[in-house]
Amino acid sequence: MTHASPISATIDFDHDGVRHGFLKLPHSHDGSAWGSIMIPITVARNGDGPTALLTGANHGDEYEGPLALFDLARSIGDQDFTGRVIIVPLMNTPAFHAARRTSPIDGRNLNRVFPGDAAGTVTEKIADYFQRVLLPMADYVLDFHSGGKTLDFVPFCASHVLDDKANQDRCAAAMKAFNAPYSVTLLEVDNVGMYDTAAEEMGKVFISTELGGGGTARAETVAVARKGVRNLLKHAGILDGPLEEAATIHLDMPDGRCFVEATSVGLLEFCVELGDAVTAGQCVARIHDVHRTGGEPTEYHSQLDGIFIGRHFPGLIAMGDIVAVIAVPT
Amino acid sequence: MTHASPISATIDFDHDGVRHGFLKLPHSHDGSAWGSIMIPITVARNGDGPTALLTGANHGDEYEGPLALFDLARSIGDQDFTGRVIIVPLMNTPAFHAARRTSPIDGRNLNRVFPGDAAGTVTEKIADYFQRVLLPMADYVLDFHSGGKTLDFVPFCASHVLDDKANQDRCAAAMKAFNAPYSVTLLEVDNVGMYDTAAEEMGKVFISTELGGGGTARAETVAVARKGVRNLLKHAGILDGPLEEAATIHLDMPDGRCFVEATSVGLLEFCVELGDAVTAGQCVARIHDVHRTGGEPTEYHSQLDGIFIGRHFPGLIAMGDIVAVIAVPT
Amino acid sequence: MTHASPISATIDFDHDGVRHGFLKLPHSHDGSAWGSIMIPITVARNGDGPTALLTGANHGDEYEGPLALFDLARSIGDQDFTGRVIIVPLMNTPAFHAARRTSPIDGRNLNRVFPGDAAGTVTEKIADYFQRVLLPMADYVLDFHSGGKTLDFVPFCASHVLDDKANQDRCAAAMKAFNAPYSVTLLEVDNVGMYDTAAEEMGKVFISTELGGGGTARAETVAVARKGVRNLLKHAGILDGPLEEAATIHLDMPDGRCFVEATSVGLLEFCVELGDAVTAGQCVARIHDVHRTGGEPTEYHSQLDGIFIGRHFPGLIAMGDIVAVIAVPT
Amino acid sequence: MTHASPISATIDFDHDGVRHGFLKLPHSHDGSAWGSIMIPITVARNGDGPTALLTGANHGDEYEGPLALFDLARSIGDQDFTGRVIIVPLMNTPAFHAARRTSPIDGRNLNRVFPGDAAGTVTEKIADYFQRVLLPMADYVLDFHSGGKTLDFVPFCASHVLDDKANQDRCAAAMKAFNAPYSVTLLEVDNVGMYDTAAEEMGKVFISTELGGGGTARAETVAVARKGVRNLLKHAGILDGPLEEAATIHLDMPDGRCFVEATSVGLLEFCVELGDAVTAGQCVARIHDVHRTGGEPTEYHSQLDGIFIGRHFPGLIAMGDIVAVIAVPT
Amino acid sequence: MTHASPISATIDFDHDGVRHGFLKLPHSHDGSAWGSIMIPITVARNGDGPTALLTGANHGDEYEGPLALFDLARSIGDQDFTGRVIIVPLMNTPAFHAARRTSPIDGRNLNRVFPGDAAGTVTEKIADYFQRVLLPMADYVLDFHSGGKTLDFVPFCASHVLDDKANQDRCAAAMKAFNAPYSVTLLEVDNVGMYDTAAEEMGKVFISTELGGGGTARAETVAVARKGVRNLLKHAGILDGPLEEAATIHLDMPDGRCFVEATSVGLLEFCVELGDAVTAGQCVARIHDVHRTGGEPTEYHSQLDGIFIGRHFPGLIAMGDIVAVIAVPT
Amino acid sequence: MTHASPISATIDFDHDGVRHGFLKLPHSHDGSAWGSIMIPITVARNGDGPTALLTGANHGDEYEGPLALFDLARSIGDQDFTGRVIIVPLMNTPAFHAARRTSPIDGRNLNRVFPGDAAGTVTEKIADYFQRVLLPMADYVLDFHSGGKTLDFVPFCASHVLDDKANQDRCAAAMKAFNAPYSVTLLEVDNVGMYDTAAEEMGKVFISTELGGGGTARAETVAVARKGVRNLLKHAGILDGPLEEAATIHLDMPDGRCFVEATSVGLLEFCVELGDAVTAGQCVARIHDVHRTGGEPTEYHSQLDGIFIGRHFPGLIAMGDIVAVIAVPT
Repeated sequence: MTHASPISATIDFDHDGVRHGFLKLPHSHDGSAWGSIMIPITVARNGDGPTALLTGANHGDEYEGPLALFDLARSIGDQDFTGRVIIVPLMNTPAFHAARRTSPIDGRNLNRVFPGDAAGTVTEKIADYFQRVLLPMADYVLDFHSGGKTLDFVPFCASHVLDDKANQDRCAAAMKAFNAPYSVTLLEVDNVGMYDTAAEEMGKVFISTELGGGGTARAETVAVARKGVRNLLKHAGILDGPLEEAATIHLDMPDGRCFVEATSVGLLEFCVELGDAVTAGQCVARIHDVHRTGGEPTEYHSQLDGIFIGRHFPGLIAMGDIVAVIAVPT
Repeated sequence: MTHASPISATIDFDHDGVRHGFLKLPHSHDGSAWGSIMIPITVARNGDGPTALLTGANHGDEYEGPLALFDLARSIGDQDFTGRVIIVPLMNTPAFHAARRTSPIDGRNLNRVFPGDAAGTVTEKIADYFQRVLLPMADYVLDFHSGGKTLDFVPFCASHVLDDKANQDRCAAAMKAFNAPYSVTLLEVDNVGMYDTAAEEMGKVFISTELGGGGTARAETVAVARKGVRNLLKHAGILDGPLEEAATIHLDMPDGRCFVEATSVGLLEFCVELGDAVTAGQCVARIHDVHRTGGEPTEYHSQLDGIFIGRHFPGLIAMGDIVAVIAVPT
Repeated sequence: MTHASPISATIDFDHDGVRHGFLKLPHSHDGSAWGSIMIPITVARNGDGPTALLTGANHGDEYEGPLALFDLARSIGDQDFTGRVIIVPLMNTPAFHAARRTSPIDGRNLNRVFPGDAAGTVTEKIADYFQRVLLPMADYVLDFHSGGKTLDFVPFCASHVLDDKANQDRCAAAMKAFNAPYSVTLLEVDNVGMYDTAAEEMGKVFISTELGGGGTARAETVAVARKGVRNLLKHAGILDGPLEEAATIHLDMPDGRCFVEATSVGLLEFCVELGDAVTAGQCVARIHDVHRTGGEPTEYHSQLDGIFIGRHFPGLIAMGDIVAVIAVPT
Repeated sequence: MTHASPISATIDFDHDGVRHGFLKLPHSHDGSAWGSIMIPITVARNGDGPTALLTGANHGDEYEGPLALFDLARSIGDQDFTGRVIIVPLMNTPAFHAARRTSPIDGRNLNRVFPGDAAGTVTEKIADYFQRVLLPMADYVLDFHSGGKTLDFVPFCASHVLDDKANQDRCAAAMKAFNAPYSVTLLEVDNVGMYDTAAEEMGKVFISTELGGGGTARAETVAVARKGVRNLLKHAGILDGPLEEAATIHLDMPDGRCFVEATSVGLLEFCVELGDAVTAGQCVARIHDVHRTGGEPTEYHSQLDGIFIGRHFPGLIAMGDIVAVIAVPT
Repeated sequence: MTHASPISATIDFDHDGVRHGFLKLPHSHDGSAWGSIMIPITVARNGDGPTALLTGANHGDEYEGPLALFDLARSIGDQDFTGRVIIVPLMNTPAFHAARRTSPIDGRNLNRVFPGDAAGTVTEKIADYFQRVLLPMADYVLDFHSGGKTLDFVPFCASHVLDDKANQDRCAAAMKAFNAPYSVTLLEVDNVGMYDTAAEEMGKVFISTELGGGGTARAETVAVARKGVRNLLKHAGILDGPLEEAATIHLDMPDGRCFVEATSVGLLEFCVELGDAVTAGQCVARIHDVHRTGGEPTEYHSQLDGIFIGRHFPGLIAMGDIVAVIAVPT
Repeated sequence: MTHASPISATIDFDHDGVRHGFLKLPHSHDGSAWGSIMIPITVARNGDGPTALLTGANHGDEYEGPLALFDLARSIGDQDFTGRVIIVPLMNTPAFHAARRTSPIDGRNLNRVFPGDAAGTVTEKIADYFQRVLLPMADYVLDFHSGGKTLDFVPFCASHVLDDKANQDRCAAAMKAFNAPYSVTLLEVDNVGMYDTAAEEMGKVFISTELGGGGTARAETVAVARKGVRNLLKHAGILDGPLEEAATIHLDMPDGRCFVEATSVGLLEFCVELGDAVTAGQCVARIHDVHRTGGEPTEYHSQLDGIFIGRHFPGLIAMGDIVAVIAVPT
């Protein structure tokens, strides 16, 4: 049996104008028997044209997307545009308020529960609403990510290798238009349950980003996000004017050798900075035993020639954590 | 009544050689009725000469100091040195293991409980041991700090304005020798209970640092820490050889106008990057309401012409938090 | 595959007499590898006749029902009765002991997990036992509710609008017999997973109540519960004697306008008392910003002419919470 | 050694006009190394005259006071007044935001830590600031209380039996002017550490209240608070105009027999309503064992003829909790 | 749709030699967005022959198995053996590190979630990997258990009554070979979701143990585990040499009368020691009310003549907990 | 300023007869604003004679003492006795209910806060009441201990080496009368804040015990406790009749070599059983690294010839924990 979504929008999607409102998700809990989660949303429409669906805080501790999107929601009405822009700056609102990757309510990672479940947990209900209501409305889909509290990245826009090569090209073109400092063709190791996959399987033009991390945002990475979303809307024909373009470095991630993994625990030291070129066999990081002084740290080496584009962020690290990510210029 | 410290060192401080051991602090708790906290320590001595006392993780989520000091502890025996080096990389060991600023055992901030109390809480006992046992042994004292999980700084070494101008000059000379990218003369707003004050009141040559932050360490900031501690030991005459010197920018913090404070809550956006020059009245940050789209953010402005040297790190901010720190070139 | 219920009753349901015992639900957990949840139950039977199934603490922080039912369990043997009375004063025993709406074990709301699952979580196992074992035994079903810690209501008995109009009439007659100060015909907004729906779909005569709230009970509301259950048993022919009758006010809840919802956060002030008549447009509550003095509160208005029958109880309120419930006299 | 208070006011107390600002208390913690607690304050002054110090949320889960004081802070400037009114609606701001009686930071009860300690915990620092800065400024002191989440009271204003009979009379006159439905002369069982005692020992005219409870506020109890504070300001000569007067019932609490205490645990049932007259020996409450059905509850009896003015609020009760409070009409 | 297991082994199962490595289970969580759970594994193979699969810490607070298996993994290469031994000392690694029966990640009991789910929770993924990858490789399966923190047992090896009598005999022979001080034929009350059942349904020779408990290990019980696993490998023909044999006591558990259950709460006292013979009706334990002195404890009696083989371990006990287990000599 | 104790006894100490009651300690907290901690106490008096003060659960997870004392409280009235027996089975009642060594309210270890503080925390108030009210009444003081959840001991009675040799002899005689299987002359490493010291400094005849551990009790250790307390009362002349005597082994603990300490973390294995004789240099325990298979465990050796009398109980161990205690036969 398929349930209707329990989520209702307080604004409509179909009339011209700019409306600020909420996606309201009823949530009965110990703190409020008759409470609701209120997910802020802005819908801006002006005549016929393509629809762009723009999201931030799919993971609640990633901030460049929400910053760019709160700004766009406030300013979109001041600009000439054609078609429709749907802005959800805080896709996983409970996770965002908790400053956590996952939801504090059900512990779920929104980006691993698609297609969701209208009768499931809070996070599954959000996924279901995007799957069945919002994604079908969209032509272009941009989902902002950053590294969150435990990862840090050079700022990049990403598209995927897809079975549908025509759509893969459309997505790659959108990534190029976004024009982040780095552009990465990702082959996801595990794409089951991702919003990305849900959008791509519907044939939408989908791009995502990794724009820094550490659970913070910097002026420069926010500027990348703002320029990128403007460029995407221009690329889609929703905004007018030429793209704002600067150099971007194209990178591939060929296989699992991109990932350097920790097999020891302790205090993490990097020997290179994000963006540095590294060579296969080069020591990129060391892990120090913290129980006593006088011992030798364990060294971790790159398995590829490439660029150091991502890293574990916290000062301490556990066995099995990804230490470093190396990508290969194309 | 003055109690003896319950802390005992498993190694002695007085004979030549390099010894790795522990400061053992008995701690009876629900998880181990007869347990102890084991604080790693290295003592290296070679003949008569000055004593340097080097500490990291006074706050448990600051990593450049521990990284530089674990390395020094391992390598000091490979070098020619004269005098004595006492290395405690994890001054607040329980806080370090918890990746927290404060102790998970008593919630205390080690840098606000000096002179400590031998009959007090765990953190007070650690402070007391430094106050009554280790500081009296030292001529030079270096206490490594970084911003921790909630602050981020340009990398700087610091000394204080002291009533004892002769010692102030000695400390400033040590700071100059440390040779971080920035050198800051701090006038602490509240120095009650600080390790700094305890050392300075004994007439020790004392310097501290802020070398980044966010609860992580970068290759560059660790390099600053390593070079700085070598330079200090050379300055003290413990290591031989010329200082490794590069440019440093000298800064003052004249008064409370250095601090930009939040009077609203929400999502924090910076308009400038750490190290940027700012002018009085310039907007340095904005705070966005996260409950709904469509509103205007609150702007925060510098009150001084200067350099943007420190900032709130997390993406969310509360009322009363320091947003930004501006220092003035001398 | 359908599992048998893991719950076993320590008493039998079929012989004459009054028996006090337990529903035993095995529960292996960190605190007891071989533990069980013991749900108190009383079964009273005297010859042939209808069966009434009486429950309290479906939500664990609602107290009028348990108080009335512990009393009835103790005293039923002193009275003449015909047929069978099954009394479960603490339907969600773990939630009751935790003084929580939902189960502390699995976080589930018992009144949203029907028909339950014999192989599921603890709460789902309880629902399954009622669905497959107890409800089929019953002719009359009374489930006591109150507002719990986060809601407060005028004391009312409720029945639902049902597709089966004959049963709707039987339920309405039972509600009338219960004779609470208010009698409300509810059209549930979301009845998926409710015990109510499970009972009604089996064609049982089902009534429920809301008898105050706030996580407490008052002498007056307990008196309503006691009289109501006696009246229901008389109405069912299980107890002899005339109904104890007083005036009741009949109310309808026509649509979503009955609910006033919060779109701001802060300190909640009501302008009317429960039971007051209100008119459409009247300010019923205000929410004050608590971050600073000097601002204007947000006002909330009734959307209907009616009676103020329910409210948010705690002094603080979040966005999306129901502020007030207005019902319409019939 | 006496420390200066670390708390600073962002507004001044001495010039004419109405100013809204904060008491800023620096608080370095794991969530913000350089954070502050911001306690909202309003100071209204108009020429020379007496000073009234008005406070709410001494306990953080009591709401009538904050509601009346946020209103007064907003509206005081619209009225003619003489002298000075200092309004701190959220005396224990951290406790208020946590909806707790005690501070979530140090677990302390603000009303038991006077005279406080400038070098102590957060709660002790607040007490110290009232003790040494605000109380000395005041002539009249009103501290609003209600029952909080675990007690409920008939609405009353209270003054104490004092050694200084002249001040006792002044306080009693202020209580009379406040004109709550009940006026109670309290002989505190344990007044060590109370704000009341601190104010009274300085010879201030001090009154407090208990205006309901349960962790909520009702329209009627808020009206009592609003009228009471207006009456007090009139009584003090700060506001003009006649007192708004209604009947009040005067009560005494002669000795420990006023308190009925629980010596069993379980489910609490009251046999009388707040405000009811009771006689010595009358059963006022019963406690039911919740582990099984079929047992007899324990009865609790009044030890005095009097009025039932206060009660345990939650549905469950523990050994040693006060069940009921009985006061005696004078 | 069947997913592939997300778990990968870092070592291969098929070549001769002894390899130490990990089962790597990707786990994205708030503490590490790109983390993995690393389950230690040793595979030792020498030519063709039977495969034994040996596991400990199915429940994370049971220690004899892990101790015996870490030893065997270290020493197996020093011995002559034929065939293959697969050793997983910490089957539920997250539970083991947390010293808990159940997983701290999802709260699940690994021994109740078979056959698991490759797309489920962490614990379900582990079960699925054993179900679909490791169990099919095995001929002999030994799963070490002890009582954990909340139960204590005489040391015994166990096999089950099976529908497949030929396999039941093979299992009983393996149990006999293990040669613990006690050998128990278990008729599991509830075997749904158990690893035991999964192995037995595949026709594997399966035995398990209970070797003490209380969340600790003793020298004697570890010796039982070490001897038992050597004996099993000899029985299977993997190790050479004669069995190390001592006396064992054979026991049956005929029905539910084996279990003495608590129907009261409080302080638990045993009247007999583990291993004592008891008679039907004998008092084996008493539970004391802890709220007051002067009352009589509740007595608990054996329902059978037999041996007292298992008990509740903690000093406090709740309603529904198993107090004692009595088995019957055969 | 010395405060009066806030604790009151509900029974008197001075009249003949057996009375069961409470020590009532007012405790205002978030769960009950007007609550009290109720510490059960029994006072039995019959004419003039010495006073014995008997306590259990000084640490809340030690059970032999409470079991013996609840029994004695119930049965003392059935026996002939002379003088007075004061029985407090649950000295730290909050810790006992939480099954914790330390208080869940303030985290304090009752046996380290003497002489306590009437204006301090809950645990300090309890200590103060014993220090100033109960100890002065006593001639003989017996404080029952066991190992608790994290230690395990052979059952012994203990007395201390005291400066007052006459009292040391009286205490040793009482220990001998108690007649546990082992009798240990303890030289406490750190006796600051102990109840023992408080009693001894008043010149009382004081003995304590360690009767097993692990957070449980066994029939045999409870029997030791029961016999011991009877013997002490006979020794004191309060009960009549001959001592019940069996062999006891006298042991000394000469110095810190009695303690074997962990300098590594992991899985703990013992090579000897409690009560075994060991020789200096013998391996008594091993600690296994749990992160991977294949490594060598760290061995721990006895530093003395003696008896293995105490051990770490949990299966996992941390650096700094005591592994084993070795005492020397006298």
